Amino acid sequence: MIVPGFTAAGTAAGIKKQGGLDLALMVAEGPVAAAGVFTRNRVKAAPVLVCRERLRGGKAQAILVNSGNANACTGLQGREDAKETTSELAHLLKIPERLVLPASTGVIGQPLPAGKITAALPALVANLRLEGLPEVAQAIMTTDTRPKTALVQEKIGGRRVSLAGLAKGAGMIHPDLATLLVFVFTDAAVSPKVLKSLLRQALPVSFNRITVDGDTSTNDTILFLAGGKAGNPLIAAPGPEMTALGEVLNQVMGDLARQVVADGEGARHFYRVVVQGAASPKEALNAALTVALSPLVKTAMAGEDVNWGRIMAALGRSSARFDPERVAIAFGDRQIVENGQGLGPAAEDRAKKVMESGPFTVHIHLHNGPFTDYYDTCDYTEDYIRINASYRT
Amino acid sequence: MIVPGFTAAGTAAGIKKQGGLDLALMVAEGPVAAAGVFTRNRVKAAPVLVCRERLRGGKAQAILVNSGNANACTGLQGREDAKETTSELAHLLKIPERLVLPASTGVIGQPLPAGKITAALPALVANLRLEGLPEVAQAIMTTDTRPKTALVQEKIGGRRVSLAGLAKGAGMIHPDLATLLVFVFTDAAVSPKVLKSLLRQALPVSFNRITVDGDTSTNDTILFLAGGKAGNPLIAAPGPEMTALGEVLNQVMGDLARQVVADGEGARHFYRVVVQGAASPKEALNAALTVALSPLVKTAMAGEDVNWGRIMAALGRSSARFDPERVAIAFGDRQIVENGQGLGPAAEDRAKKVMESGPFTVHIHLHNGPFTDYYDTCDYTEDYIRINASYRT
Repeated sequence: MIVPGFTAAGTAAGIKKQGGLDLALMVAEGPVAAAGVFTRNRVKAAPVLVCRERLRGGKAQAILVNSGNANACTGLQGREDAKETTSELAHLLKIPERLVLPASTGVIGQPLPAGKITAALPALVANLRLEGLPEVAQAIMTTDTRPKTALVQEKIGGRRVSLAGLAKGAGMIHPDLATLLVFVFTDAAVSPKVLKSLLRQALPVSFNRITVDGDTSTNDTILFLAGGKAGNPLIAAPGPEMTALGEVLNQVMGDLARQVVADGEGARHFYRVVVQGAASPKEALNAALTVALSPLVKTAMAGEDVNWGRIMAALGRSSARFDPERVAIAFGDRQIVENGQGLGPAAEDRAKKVMESGPFTVHIHLHNGPFTDYYDTCDYTEDYIRINASYRT
Repeated sequence: MIVPGFTAAGTAAGIKKQGGLDLALMVAEGPVAAAGVFTRNRVKAAPVLVCRERLRGGKAQAILVNSGNANACTGLQGREDAKETTSELAHLLKIPERLVLPASTGVIGQPLPAGKITAALPALVANLRLEGLPEVAQAIMTTDTRPKTALVQEKIGGRRVSLAGLAKGAGMIHPDLATLLVFVFTDAAVSPKVLKSLLRQALPVSFNRITVDGDTSTNDTILFLAGGKAGNPLIAAPGPEMTALGEVLNQVMGDLARQVVADGEGARHFYRVVVQGAASPKEALNAALTVALSPLVKTAMAGEDVNWGRIMAALGRSSARFDPERVAIAFGDRQIVENGQGLGPAAEDRAKKVMESGPFTVHIHLHNGPFTDYYDTCDYTEDYIRINASYRT
């Protein structure tokens, strides 16, 4: 996975208690167009505050990211740590400090070990290489069980353009924004304004449509950098090139978002909840979200129990208006509820086979209007509890 | 636990797969003042629909309740089953059908075994007795591990008045209304209008302040019957007697609500989340609820991990406005966060002792206004998952 114009590396700086890669760096050849979107949590981690400020100019050259410590709820010291480590890196790279974007993920409320980070920087810089992105995907993992990457290549503006992304997820996954960290790179030439606009349009088909546990992180960060090495004419306004690049971005971000849900903490079943027939777009989204977040639906999924009564109960407490006796529900193409009532054990047995066969879709029809929306989510297993009861120990 | 004027009995009608008491009856000597409050879930069980209709007159004489089957999402047949079983009972008791209130709890979406219920009615009626209420508390249990009852006696209007309540809870517990079934009886003489008004004022200090899993049931029902045997002058308007009876009701309902949370499915830790210093009453309530419902806070509690970062993150996604760097958090009287930052491992160790010592309070101060509110809740353990993954099998 290479994006011409970007080098990267990861290293073990000793931040994670259990050891392993925990510090990573991504660098462009010069200042490039950059855009970001961040958590809407009122409690924002120090790197989020620093990143937002530095992205105002629409340019960046490097991203410095650590796992094992979120640098959140760390006050003034936390912001100073984020600035000190990125300043040290800027010095090594001989670039202005404001072009370095910090990101952190891990335990909240503990001081960032800034000394360990600055000590590891020279080796990290020395190790920068075109093939380094997969190593970054490794280094940003926390409770993730596997790295998450995606790459799409497409001809845009007469040139072959690459767009690659990496993500870490696992827990505290909920819009807006449903992820912890996502970094996306392209060698296309794009203006910062278009970059930001593309990022925003990609959210409703990716990270704003997934939930693991309803808990929004303090560190959610998506950064998108465009280096321009592909040699296409600069995309600075709407047009077929911007549309094409948007499609590619949606593919990469949608792919990463699904990887995050499929690797949700302890998850064994990955499913999409689609609500059709809602009276408004808002009701469609809220009904899908309410079913996707329901702990009782999630635990039934873990037990491969086709417990559609819990889906009905979740729909009933959502904001969607509907007549319970018109609702239809199917797992994949197996209908289990019609006119609000169950179709019996044989239908449920067929639906159970759908659950057993891998990722599936829960289709819900409210028969109360033309609107539809969806959410991707995963089940709650005993492992979700185990992972989160002992996360800090 | 006796309330003069009310008899009760429970029996095993064969509704629960695993056997045991699953049908119960409570009867007043004649038509008495009655009031009820019900689930706000759009999907309402058949007995809820029938109950609401029959309570319009403010009078009732009998409550027929079963566990093992919720009679929800059962359509027209479900309503006919609720009517048929209560009609059969009315016939046996020689009272008008409209004075019998039905209630059900258990699996959603399966037809009510009306035949089993009507077959068990004669024995149930024959067994009615003053000492029968504890047996009812047994018969309405589903995943509850213990029956929930409360009794308070007080001198009101110159007479000794008894007020007793029974509840079943365990899962699908969330306002409004946070319970499955609650029945409250008093021998005081009270008008139906006052009864309803007392019931409503008791909710914000009882069943509207507890949550187990955020899932609202389709069957939530609280019924309150006043027989008048105590001989006090009828309480039909505000005054010291209404206030005194309200106090007693709040005590009984508050007690039952706490019993429900403490027996939440799989729960090992029971805690109250108190939010002070909010800028509005709504923000105080929403902040308390968001922390109480957070799966990541719940799982940390299960692991006795003083993970205050998750509390901060949950506060940050609530609707409450506040400056993260002014927040204070304590477990019991042990402070762990001041000015938004942790007080270190020694403080956390002291807070951990509070968690280990039984029910405790999480005190949160937002320092942004004069308003305060609270929620009672419990942790998420592996057992919550286990119970709910296999509920129907």
